[in-house]
Amino acid sequence: MRLCHFMTLDFKTHNMNEIKIFCPATIANLSCGFDVLGLCLDNVGDEMVIRKSDKKGIRITKLVGADLPLETEKNVAGVAALAMLEALNSDAGFDIEIYKNIKAGSGIGSSAASSAGAVFGINELLGRPFEIKDLVPFAMQGEKLACGNAHADNVAPALLGGFTLVRSYSPLDIIKIESPSELYATVVHPQIELKTSDARSVLKQTVSLKSAIMQWGNVGGLIAGLYTKDYDLIGRSLHDEIVEPIRSVLIPGFDLIKRTALGNGALGSGISGSGPSIFALSKGEATAKQIAKAMSAVYDEMKLPYEIHVSKVNPDGVRIL
Amino acid sequence: MRLCHFMTLDFKTHNMNEIKIFCPATIANLSCGFDVLGLCLDNVGDEMVIRKSDKKGIRITKLVGADLPLETEKNVAGVAALAMLEALNSDAGFDIEIYKNIKAGSGIGSSAASSAGAVFGINELLGRPFEIKDLVPFAMQGEKLACGNAHADNVAPALLGGFTLVRSYSPLDIIKIESPSELYATVVHPQIELKTSDARSVLKQTVSLKSAIMQWGNVGGLIAGLYTKDYDLIGRSLHDEIVEPIRSVLIPGFDLIKRTALGNGALGSGISGSGPSIFALSKGEATAKQIAKAMSAVYDEMKLPYEIHVSKVNPDGVRIL
Repeated sequence: MRLCHFMTLDFKTHNMNEIKIFCPATIANLSCGFDVLGLCLDNVGDEMVIRKSDKKGIRITKLVGADLPLETEKNVAGVAALAMLEALNSDAGFDIEIYKNIKAGSGIGSSAASSAGAVFGINELLGRPFEIKDLVPFAMQGEKLACGNAHADNVAPALLGGFTLVRSYSPLDIIKIESPSELYATVVHPQIELKTSDARSVLKQTVSLKSAIMQWGNVGGLIAGLYTKDYDLIGRSLHDEIVEPIRSVLIPGFDLIKRTALGNGALGSGISGSGPSIFALSKGEATAKQIAKAMSAVYDEMKLPYEIHVSKVNPDGVRIL
Repeated sequence: MRLCHFMTLDFKTHNMNEIKIFCPATIANLSCGFDVLGLCLDNVGDEMVIRKSDKKGIRITKLVGADLPLETEKNVAGVAALAMLEALNSDAGFDIEIYKNIKAGSGIGSSAASSAGAVFGINELLGRPFEIKDLVPFAMQGEKLACGNAHADNVAPALLGGFTLVRSYSPLDIIKIESPSELYATVVHPQIELKTSDARSVLKQTVSLKSAIMQWGNVGGLIAGLYTKDYDLIGRSLHDEIVEPIRSVLIPGFDLIKRTALGNGALGSGISGSGPSIFALSKGEATAKQIAKAMSAVYDEMKLPYEIHVSKVNPDGVRIL
């Protein structure tokens, strides 16, 4: 699939001076997989336009939809792009326009979408000096700027699509796992901002061996469920012993939203990334939409503003528009 | 495969009064999967003969090759069998002969082989009231007697074959994973006894979040490697952040044996179960045999008596002879 896709693009991007891309939102952690698992959404994301420039380096020339820094070294897309150009020892220059739809601090990979988009787009315009997987470390530099921690669990699925497992950070080893075709995500974003750095600071630095064993049992189960397309096993494995009990108290209505999702047929539900968004996974779009309706009713009742999305898993990651 | 096998056995075991079975050794933990992962060996194991008796209950009538209790309530096979009969509310009676080849305290599932064999054999003689997977909780009662902890990571692979993942203990949820066909194990057993209960007592009850994350990344990687038959990924994932650094000091020559295995082509190497046996996994029998030779040279040099085994992964678990 990806190869065919690329063969077409090779023709399209050859001598291209400008590229317009879709930069998908992502759900990291996925209950049991804190810091290692993530999935890519299909219809939620930003857009970026990247143009070759005669002037060396990276400039953020336009930023629509968010109040974020334009200065290259303070912008996640800028930092990720600079890391890539530095690795190439390149004199190339690029102007980047960012059209944000994903709100910063929503917990669905807003900074990752920009970081991943920047390095993906520049890689295309340069004639693809890197494999997509090799772009992950550059995009991680954007994450480091955003939250102080160069985590890969959002940028990896944003770049590669599907589900991704960060088996190891040192050395970086990322495994892509295809999503079962009927798997859908519902994501609700209550309109409070929760910074990743704050959500990390509440975590304990030690965990009980017993909880850790339960967690890695569930990670194993989730991976097995994805390979065997066993939706029930996926659901049984979407359980978080360690982070959710601590972080969920920061999210208004978390327990009720989760119970509502499960009561409406979700396979599982938990905190998306570091929150405050809450995700549910379902078999089939109809169930995912039903869950969206039920979640909406909860936050309507609480008079809490929210955004809500229903999306299948995006198999390919960032794409050219 | 299993179904065809059973159809033949159905005929053979109908009205059968006696059964002779092979009860395989197993490797639990497999580096990253402490308390959740295990695999079944093919040519290392005990034999048992089980006979229907007119006398209600379970008797261990013969025990060859080990100095273990004959008293039913003190014998792991007896305890597992009694748990099963109790669940069935059965008045049936059985005499069990056990021919041990797996040494107690070797770390390759000696008690699990007896517990699994007993419940498998009696299930056959009773006309299979239980699915094989449903025998695991009874066999776990034998493990509880042996080491104070009803763990499933040896009895599950002994009963089901291949690799098994204990996703959850409560409720018990066991996933069987087929082994890639070229995967071989080398297991060396230095002749010191290390009780599971002692090997457990050295463990710390809390672990750092960072180590736990590395561990569940590797569990995910190992499961992904098994499903995709990616031998390199299996090897990269066979890493233990948490237990091996603590337990390995109890095993003479551990570091050298592990380095030797890796230097001779092993995908990975670690402590088998709670030790003192050390396992290595390889792609192909030739490599596994070469590793056995090199490990032997290490213990020969140290003048430490040992047993050594090379085995492919047993796809089916306990089998009728």
